[in-house]
Amino acid sequence: MKLDAKPEDFKIQQLGPCEITSPLHLSKVEGDGVYDYIQKGDRILYDVSLRQLNESRDQNITPISFEKAGPMEHIFFEPSQTKVAIVTCGGLCPGLNNVIRALVMQLTYRYKAERIIGIRYGFAGFIHQYGHPIMELTPVVVDEIHTRGGTILGSSRGMQDIGEIVDTLERLSINVLFTIGGDGTLKGAHAIQQEIEKRNLKISVAGIPKTIDNDINLIDRSFGFETSCAIANDIIRDAHNEARGAYNGIALIKLMGRDAGFIVAHSALSIPEVNFVIIPEMYFELEGTHGFLEVLRQRLELKQHAVIVVAEGAGQFLFENSPQHKDASGNTKYEDIGIYLKKQITNYFDEINFPHSIKYIDPSYIIRSAPAIANDSKFCIQLAQNAVHAAMAGKTGFVVGHWNGHFTLIPIPMAVKERKCINIESELWYNVLETTGQPMHMENGKENLTQT
Amino acid sequence: MKLDAKPEDFKIQQLGPCEITSPLHLSKVEGDGVYDYIQKGDRILYDVSLRQLNESRDQNITPISFEKAGPMEHIFFEPSQTKVAIVTCGGLCPGLNNVIRALVMQLTYRYKAERIIGIRYGFAGFIHQYGHPIMELTPVVVDEIHTRGGTILGSSRGMQDIGEIVDTLERLSINVLFTIGGDGTLKGAHAIQQEIEKRNLKISVAGIPKTIDNDINLIDRSFGFETSCAIANDIIRDAHNEARGAYNGIALIKLMGRDAGFIVAHSALSIPEVNFVIIPEMYFELEGTHGFLEVLRQRLELKQHAVIVVAEGAGQFLFENSPQHKDASGNTKYEDIGIYLKKQITNYFDEINFPHSIKYIDPSYIIRSAPAIANDSKFCIQLAQNAVHAAMAGKTGFVVGHWNGHFTLIPIPMAVKERKCINIESELWYNVLETTGQPMHMENGKENLTQT
Amino acid sequence: MKLDAKPEDFKIQQLGPCEITSPLHLSKVEGDGVYDYIQKGDRILYDVSLRQLNESRDQNITPISFEKAGPMEHIFFEPSQTKVAIVTCGGLCPGLNNVIRALVMQLTYRYKAERIIGIRYGFAGFIHQYGHPIMELTPVVVDEIHTRGGTILGSSRGMQDIGEIVDTLERLSINVLFTIGGDGTLKGAHAIQQEIEKRNLKISVAGIPKTIDNDINLIDRSFGFETSCAIANDIIRDAHNEARGAYNGIALIKLMGRDAGFIVAHSALSIPEVNFVIIPEMYFELEGTHGFLEVLRQRLELKQHAVIVVAEGAGQFLFENSPQHKDASGNTKYEDIGIYLKKQITNYFDEINFPHSIKYIDPSYIIRSAPAIANDSKFCIQLAQNAVHAAMAGKTGFVVGHWNGHFTLIPIPMAVKERKCINIESELWYNVLETTGQPMHMENGKENLTQT
Amino acid sequence: MKLDAKPEDFKIQQLGPCEITSPLHLSKVEGDGVYDYIQKGDRILYDVSLRQLNESRDQNITPISFEKAGPMEHIFFEPSQTKVAIVTCGGLCPGLNNVIRALVMQLTYRYKAERIIGIRYGFAGFIHQYGHPIMELTPVVVDEIHTRGGTILGSSRGMQDIGEIVDTLERLSINVLFTIGGDGTLKGAHAIQQEIEKRNLKISVAGIPKTIDNDINLIDRSFGFETSCAIANDIIRDAHNEARGAYNGIALIKLMGRDAGFIVAHSALSIPEVNFVIIPEMYFELEGTHGFLEVLRQRLELKQHAVIVVAEGAGQFLFENSPQHKDASGNTKYEDIGIYLKKQITNYFDEINFPHSIKYIDPSYIIRSAPAIANDSKFCIQLAQNAVHAAMAGKTGFVVGHWNGHFTLIPIPMAVKERKCINIESELWYNVLETTGQPMHMENGKENLTQT
Repeated sequence: MKLDAKPEDFKIQQLGPCEITSPLHLSKVEGDGVYDYIQKGDRILYDVSLRQLNESRDQNITPISFEKAGPMEHIFFEPSQTKVAIVTCGGLCPGLNNVIRALVMQLTYRYKAERIIGIRYGFAGFIHQYGHPIMELTPVVVDEIHTRGGTILGSSRGMQDIGEIVDTLERLSINVLFTIGGDGTLKGAHAIQQEIEKRNLKISVAGIPKTIDNDINLIDRSFGFETSCAIANDIIRDAHNEARGAYNGIALIKLMGRDAGFIVAHSALSIPEVNFVIIPEMYFELEGTHGFLEVLRQRLELKQHAVIVVAEGAGQFLFENSPQHKDASGNTKYEDIGIYLKKQITNYFDEINFPHSIKYIDPSYIIRSAPAIANDSKFCIQLAQNAVHAAMAGKTGFVVGHWNGHFTLIPIPMAVKERKCINIESELWYNVLETTGQPMHMENGKENLTQT
Repeated sequence: MKLDAKPEDFKIQQLGPCEITSPLHLSKVEGDGVYDYIQKGDRILYDVSLRQLNESRDQNITPISFEKAGPMEHIFFEPSQTKVAIVTCGGLCPGLNNVIRALVMQLTYRYKAERIIGIRYGFAGFIHQYGHPIMELTPVVVDEIHTRGGTILGSSRGMQDIGEIVDTLERLSINVLFTIGGDGTLKGAHAIQQEIEKRNLKISVAGIPKTIDNDINLIDRSFGFETSCAIANDIIRDAHNEARGAYNGIALIKLMGRDAGFIVAHSALSIPEVNFVIIPEMYFELEGTHGFLEVLRQRLELKQHAVIVVAEGAGQFLFENSPQHKDASGNTKYEDIGIYLKKQITNYFDEINFPHSIKYIDPSYIIRSAPAIANDSKFCIQLAQNAVHAAMAGKTGFVVGHWNGHFTLIPIPMAVKERKCINIESELWYNVLETTGQPMHMENGKENLTQT
Repeated sequence: MKLDAKPEDFKIQQLGPCEITSPLHLSKVEGDGVYDYIQKGDRILYDVSLRQLNESRDQNITPISFEKAGPMEHIFFEPSQTKVAIVTCGGLCPGLNNVIRALVMQLTYRYKAERIIGIRYGFAGFIHQYGHPIMELTPVVVDEIHTRGGTILGSSRGMQDIGEIVDTLERLSINVLFTIGGDGTLKGAHAIQQEIEKRNLKISVAGIPKTIDNDINLIDRSFGFETSCAIANDIIRDAHNEARGAYNGIALIKLMGRDAGFIVAHSALSIPEVNFVIIPEMYFELEGTHGFLEVLRQRLELKQHAVIVVAEGAGQFLFENSPQHKDASGNTKYEDIGIYLKKQITNYFDEINFPHSIKYIDPSYIIRSAPAIANDSKFCIQLAQNAVHAAMAGKTGFVVGHWNGHFTLIPIPMAVKERKCINIESELWYNVLETTGQPMHMENGKENLTQT
Repeated sequence: MKLDAKPEDFKIQQLGPCEITSPLHLSKVEGDGVYDYIQKGDRILYDVSLRQLNESRDQNITPISFEKAGPMEHIFFEPSQTKVAIVTCGGLCPGLNNVIRALVMQLTYRYKAERIIGIRYGFAGFIHQYGHPIMELTPVVVDEIHTRGGTILGSSRGMQDIGEIVDTLERLSINVLFTIGGDGTLKGAHAIQQEIEKRNLKISVAGIPKTIDNDINLIDRSFGFETSCAIANDIIRDAHNEARGAYNGIALIKLMGRDAGFIVAHSALSIPEVNFVIIPEMYFELEGTHGFLEVLRQRLELKQHAVIVVAEGAGQFLFENSPQHKDASGNTKYEDIGIYLKKQITNYFDEINFPHSIKYIDPSYIIRSAPAIANDSKFCIQLAQNAVHAAMAGKTGFVVGHWNGHFTLIPIPMAVKERKCINIESELWYNVLETTGQPMHMENGKENLTQT
């Protein structure tokens, strides 16, 4: 997993020099029992392979690394005069309220920055014509919100006029903007930051990455992902009962995953009752001796039931020749692979007179709106704490990431450069194959590839 | 709730005289610290209203009552020579495995009737051509099955040839058949019992009512119903977060309930976040000042979000003029009210340019395949214990019911005579209206009905 | 289950004539699709046994019945001028917040009685010296409280000065007091009501029965009970794994149940892994061939593990001769039967050199502080709705009960006259014996009682 | 976090040359869509700090790294002739059954090594005198065991005679032994491996680390840990309701953590309602202006409730002078800090007449015996798959670890060299302090340490 980037691509922008002493009372020396402020040069290696490292050394290349997140001894904003805005954008994801709560608590109790507002319904909340009111955020308001899913701020999809957004930031005298959202939102945050820079304002723009698909570049974990897998786990467990409840019963579950199949892959690893995992990153054929339909039939012949988990973005090549696969703006429009597969399976088995019963399950909204499980809740808190540390220190245009066990800061452009996805040759995918026992390839002519 | 029936309609049929002493070692006297055998005439009143009772008394009418279930001092079948078959039919319902397990345990450990088989995949398992093997059922086999949903026996829908079923019962020397299924299955069980009678066989046919909709006549509770409501509860709770997550967000959840709206009504009572409950038993209009769409708009105006729960069988009158509403056999075919409502809402709001966002959730299979919650698990055990007591005593053609806090025995014909449903004038429905605050009627011209 | 009472004992007291038309717009005629107001004489039979009924009829005795709860056409209090207080007393029980929320919602939205206050920390909140502030209760305040356990009002144990409580009610101009609590609280409520009567005040005192043990007289179900059993279920399920995880592993779980063993009995019925249930209502011996210890050893010999569930109030006769079994006021002091049994088992097995491993689990607070499950949540809402109907109609000195499927009103003195407990000869206890397979008696000399 | 070790300390032992081609049909080239076998030199860096790396480079030191786990192109054991034994030792931990199941599935389906036995009740199962029978392990036997807690093999504590264990391994012709257990078990496994070596046998000994405390050296995650935190999370959430349910209510929860406070620290991070976290790694005082008791009083004064989470091994210095703090063998005996703290709090507050109410919760067995949550279930599968790969390749004396996102192999002596614990100066502990708001030190004279 070589990275097409240079070390300097990962430098975080700074609004100006930090001249205010942090109110956190941390330490600068080891051994005194007090956590130390982050020091210049505290960085986390991108690649943990010894071989890769040795290659870098031999070629005299500085290895890629990310800035470590954490509290700074000197900060940029005077807390008592800092006004903060928080906005949540895009689809729901478990943990949004946990992040909002932790931002408010960290700002209020640790930094004493107590002027915090929530922007309602995504970027639309910045736009006057929608008439969405501002929401004051205090510890009392957010005290219990982490116990439920959704976002108390509301959300919306899509970008709004960047100029008007920055106008509103100016009008409201905002110093720090936390944007919680996915790829599109982060691109928007970057545009906002550029407009801020153009106007020569001192407003920090901090991104907290939200992607239920866990597909943001250079970030190994995103909040809500584990919760999604946990809920999917229970649904698949019971779907397995549906499958066994009928002769040649098939349970077909469609889960989230537009470009990356992490949710279905991890779910299949957590609930070994899954027999087939179909992800956007894989090619497969339906027809033929080694195609999916025949492989499925053989499984049913053997065990009289089957569980299939498919990511919503899988198999788009099946629709390439269908006229509607681009939308008006020329974007790829995703057909519903779940419904398509259901039809194909039914047709195939009906044709060959193979008795069967298929149940189709699409739990998307059930998962998206659930409250965060414990491990995600913890992760949200730590993300928010680190986002606040960085923003108060005047850093801008960054997302808070996580890599090799550490919280990191990544420049937004690097985080949105491409999407993370599953390498078909990776250990993760191999572990899925080991667990499900599904063929390495469901493709005619490829079946013997590795059997030399 | 007067009952159109006579006391003698509730007599349970008996295969013959009971001449074998029960192995249970119970008592016949009160006060010895040992449970007493059921005595002739132990019956449970149908109606608990004092007024109704007084009316009966004045008119010298014997009130309707049901036979109380429980252990008999003398039984019909010699346990060591009794062979038992169990079959599960129709769609999945939480608790099936709990019932199977409890039947096996009660037969084996209490009656020492240890020859028990499971028929695979519903009534089809009796039919030779399908080739489904028989499954031996022992305590070891069923020991842990109650922890998971579905049915280890498998199931199928539809009836099979009655003659062949009874042939198979004869061939396998079955003495007692437990059929676990809904309305259709019970009708099938009744037909089997009649064929058995015609052939003059001594086979007991016992029905254990399974209806996730809780709509079997004269039975106040069916297993799996509380589990369904509990799972629906969590899904609705999170759907509420979906609704609040968007401006004028609407969460529309379709739940089970073909002819009766018990699941949606009880769910709405358990999770007061629900704003609209739509059941098969109610009439409503979509259009007009007092129609559902306008009432929904007013709710959104007020609170910016709404949660709607609809039973799958609701609003069928909306499709009366659509050509496809009868299937080939002339049966009513249910259109998908959930998808229909979603379209109607979207169209209406788009037309009047009312910004909104709608999320549609259909968790049917997720609910049906779940394991039973504690209270259902208990209920399944008690149902099964009572079914075994009655069957071993040579009773036949009955279902085990529950009424006014007691387990009862009901002749199958009375249980399938009609379906239980929600009376729009009942306390239950009124409690739903109180809790949701939805209008008593969503019908133009009816709105002031009671406001004199 | 004959009741030692007369029909007139169940008359509910009334503050005065009802001269205000209910704001509920219900109906008085059947068939108009609108729920009907409760009519005079709507009563629910105590006994549903046909035999009992016939006996009453033959002896010309009016059968015992309870007033049916529900909305009245005419009410006593003018809602806009009604001020309501709510207090929660005693130990926690799942559902307290659900009841508080539903009272506030029903009063506010159905009756438009919007002046509602919460008394903090039980009856102590009425007493000036404690300095607990009053809490305003509005729909916004209570909107989400049902999602968590505990009580937002706080609670405390013990009674306070009745005179001062009524002084405070007068000073605050309270018209209706809802007391949510158990046996002691209801006795307190009765004393408050008597003092109110003596002072000739028009204050309604309504009791909402709270007993996690489900042991209030003449009430077949109390809120929180099903939640407790559900949580106990999961704990027992896992305790069973603890037991099986060691050679001759024993899991001993102590659950609530001071005078009545309903929680342990119902838990054992819902999780058939339980082998021994020990309740306050049963006598048993530890020593001897048929004593508990030897019976337990035999079970271990057979299966190498055992699960025991014991109610906290069980086996108090074992401590009769220990000096400390009365407290200073002469009340029975309960010794910890769980710890005692653990010691006895260990000693016995150590003495006979029987290898074993025992794990003791006491989840009391974990259960008491949990949020209500769906079915309890529903029950709380309906209890509160009916409590409001009755109180607004000027009824006083009652508790809202539930019997034979209906919500009822019971005079407080009848509800606290004695405690409900498990009859050892009842069907419930027999079902427990059937399920666990534990001996009918664990008492030397009694083992053959029923084995004629 | 410098490591006191040399690169060569991390070399994994090998039974002999690998001359059998793996049956896995993987690849050796990148880009063919097939996972590649692990190559010699595939190693994972110990330290991901860029600064540390640069220091190593400057000093020309090879950085510490761990062998990456995974499938090998050539293996040592001929699968069809390989006999495998699995043993589980020590206390229960969520995930044991998941590991057992995944070992059996991986051996059977991937390697076709189908002779697998389970040793009952820990190392005792190897010892003839206990008479524990062997358990055959097949896919059918283990098919559903992952859905429940505990271990189907049973477990026991303590070591047995090494010689006799190896005798039994010889007698049963075992080729591979998987030991699933903690520190003590791994030390035992090491002794077994040394005895095997002495006898010149070709038996692979593989360790799968089990530590609910997550305190095994050089392993960043152990199975069951996340499940424990998740269950603790729910218990703490409800305990918070207990605390708020009384005036100055205190909930004191004792959780696992003998030498390391990871469970309490992570739990406090996931449920921000926690106010005080007390871990074995920290020093604190009870008395004095800055002691814990006074700090607690101030918290109560402010908010009228408090939640305290304490690890079982915390505060042992408080017992240093008590005579019983060493057991017969001279080992430190842990006093019950939970009960001790409860007493100290009660005494202190009683003395100063400070009204309060304290609830003590000890959910240890409830947590240990729970089934694994989804994320742990996945982790167990991957651990087991990697353990099988390594063992089949003839590696021995290793544990399967996890570090920086990769599965690794660590020589047992390095894994048991010391225990992992929380550095009081670490980011983790600081995040806990940020979240709870508890003072950095509860120690008189230390309070201003960092406040210069």
